[in-house]
Amino acid sequence: MTVQRILIVSGTHGNEINPVWAVKQFSRRENRLNYGIEYEYIIGNPVAYEKGSRYIDKDLNRSFKECKNFDQRKNSSYEINRANFLVDEFGINGSKSCQIAIDLHTTTANMGTSIVLYGRRCKDFCLAALLQNKFGLPIYLHEKDKFQTGFLVEAWPCGLVIEIGAVAQNFYDPNIVNRFSLIISSLREEIDKLKNNLIELPKELVIYVHQGSIDYPRDEKGDIDGLIHPERINQDWKMIKQGDPLFIDSQGMVHKYDRDQLIWPVFIGEAAYKEKKIAMSYTKKEVICSKKQWVQEFESL
Amino acid sequence: MTVQRILIVSGTHGNEINPVWAVKQFSRRENRLNYGIEYEYIIGNPVAYEKGSRYIDKDLNRSFKECKNFDQRKNSSYEINRANFLVDEFGINGSKSCQIAIDLHTTTANMGTSIVLYGRRCKDFCLAALLQNKFGLPIYLHEKDKFQTGFLVEAWPCGLVIEIGAVAQNFYDPNIVNRFSLIISSLREEIDKLKNNLIELPKELVIYVHQGSIDYPRDEKGDIDGLIHPERINQDWKMIKQGDPLFIDSQGMVHKYDRDQLIWPVFIGEAAYKEKKIAMSYTKKEVICSKKQWVQEFESL
Repeated sequence: MTVQRILIVSGTHGNEINPVWAVKQFSRRENRLNYGIEYEYIIGNPVAYEKGSRYIDKDLNRSFKECKNFDQRKNSSYEINRANFLVDEFGINGSKSCQIAIDLHTTTANMGTSIVLYGRRCKDFCLAALLQNKFGLPIYLHEKDKFQTGFLVEAWPCGLVIEIGAVAQNFYDPNIVNRFSLIISSLREEIDKLKNNLIELPKELVIYVHQGSIDYPRDEKGDIDGLIHPERINQDWKMIKQGDPLFIDSQGMVHKYDRDQLIWPVFIGEAAYKEKKIAMSYTKKEVICSKKQWVQEFESL
Repeated sequence: MTVQRILIVSGTHGNEINPVWAVKQFSRRENRLNYGIEYEYIIGNPVAYEKGSRYIDKDLNRSFKECKNFDQRKNSSYEINRANFLVDEFGINGSKSCQIAIDLHTTTANMGTSIVLYGRRCKDFCLAALLQNKFGLPIYLHEKDKFQTGFLVEAWPCGLVIEIGAVAQNFYDPNIVNRFSLIISSLREEIDKLKNNLIELPKELVIYVHQGSIDYPRDEKGDIDGLIHPERINQDWKMIKQGDPLFIDSQGMVHKYDRDQLIWPVFIGEAAYKEKKIAMSYTKKEVICSKKQWVQEFESL
């Protein structure tokens, strides 16, 4: 196996400050070169971080799309340019090439510590299985959503998001920092064990597969006219069945889930998703068998 | 007693959305004219609310200073103009004159439901005593801080802030909404009882008097280099004595409180106060005897 360099990105959203702090603590403690694996630490969006805002022009974590045409690039937003810079510098063909990208995020939703994958890539499954095996973290698989594309980790051959909540934007929480520190420091350990054949992946993986998103109730002017129902708020990952309450509107009317497919919600009430017209996303639960190929592909990185 | 109109302001900070929702619910339910008291509802900073940001140019709740000179006014920021508009419209000499202003806020700090007063005005003490009497709410008295001035309620003859947390900015929380609804709907009831001599103010009032604020530890570049200590975070209103931990910095060093005066902290880690270089404010606890004069002045409104 040839994994040599792992990119750890924090502050991809400038108002998610706890991972930045965790990385800061970690990188000072850490001998950067060890076990043959080196870490590269970077603040994804330093200008937004400085301002305490999610982004400057547009969401950096939706800006990693092919944009290699020079004319296009010179006129584009801060975040498009930043995305290109990160890939040019730390991408697989970059001057400081990294094989794996780990992107650290927080959410105002009550998600706990979770893993987000983008698409069904064997290498990602291998990495996710290592972490799920060690910590029992839930895995949210984001795929087939044409409204949400251009995520950072997709620009690397292997990578995933660690998403931890609930915590307010721009609010330091030592417990959240500690949770990130634990994940970062375990990561190399786990990869190292895998390398030395000391880990067997679990037989199966439980994943929550993205199906779509639900908007808030809105009034005739298009303004939000409903709250997440008190029985639904903070109940991320908890199954919703037909007839369960989703929202309560300003008239006191309860909006119920009216389909017969069981769903599992994530990002309930996430503050940053209001502008994306997402009150929550929903998933179906799927069990997949782990494959030898996952490890093989991971080892070929 | 001549209180006829009460101004209820929500969204003075555009990213504090739960009070806006509470007012929306309340104003639809409520008969606007009753018991001889009328409510006026207004979103303090509608443009910032629309954008989900705290403010556009500067903090509206620090913009209520004398600024009646026309030349000054025409060149000033959105918030200065908005402050002047609110006073011109709803101030005591305004076209829709209100005698009392209640300004509804949320905080990311774990303050619970609390009352904030600005200076020692008899009428405010009377109103605060009504609410403390009914709900047992803690009162934070803000005074003598030359770095923090120009608060909204100071521009009215009587007024106070209701501050509720912890809740993230731009995150709907039905429990927080309910807490605001309860306060708003009790307010008129209490004033009405006072009017009919059905309330006796409590003999004494416990207040937490503002003494100053403490900044985060910073590195040589001036960047924040410490977290609120795990034993301190979320411990608003809890006494701090000499030797108690305040922060932990990136080297793992604990910064302790080193003076011998007992203090009671508020707004610990409030996200919006980072730009004001405030990690927490601190108070001393004071018991004041209630005075007949409070009610007399309130009745003369």
